[in-house]
Amino acid sequence: MSVHRLNIQEINLAKERVPGWTVETEPRDALYLEWKGQDFRETFSLMTKIAEVAEELNHHPEWFNVYSRLTIRLTTHDVDGLSELDFTMAERIDALILQSK
Amino acid sequence: MSVHRLNIQEINLAKERVPGWTVETEPRDALYLEWKGQDFRETFSLMTKIAEVAEELNHHPEWFNVYSRLTIRLTTHDVDGLSELDFTMAERIDALILQSK
Repeated sequence: MSVHRLNIQEINLAKERVPGWTVETEPRDALYLEWKGQDFRETFSLMTKIAEVAEELNHHPEWFNVYSRLTIRLTTHDVDGLSELDFTMAERIDALILQSK
Repeated sequence: MSVHRLNIQEINLAKERVPGWTVETEPRDALYLEWKGQDFRETFSLMTKIAEVAEELNHHPEWFNVYSRLTIRLTTHDVDGLSELDFTMAERIDALILQSK
């Protein structure tokens, strides 16, 4: 898995694979998603599945949850920005969200 | 379970039951805890146990996690402050942390 820091052209290209996510540039490049489940149970169930992917990829989200609301931020500290790993993780999370519908 | 809003005297008294927690007063009264596990696996395992208690008490934390670090904020939106439910929840979380050692 490549962990070089993506430049803006690479980010714009990779972004097309995860249209639901927002690219942030401050304080460092990151992918950001807000998600809302029906209730806490549904949202924590999704978090449990994301946690498994995080362990599998050894890449961990910054995330905040209150009741049914979940916000996720993906960034690669080792390169102080975005790497392919963040987009792979975002794709995997999108697949989990799709499955849960 | 009483859900009236606790006043400052009641908060100070209840606070003695959960010495590891900090009382915040802005933007509303809340209990706050920072915890750090050995790694993501240990921390998410604790979160899973806390999620079960949250469902049992029907009282849900505001929490943020990145890798091994977990921050938890407890407050009772219905009373716009702290209620006995927050201290009960904090005690239950303390017990889970104690068990995990």
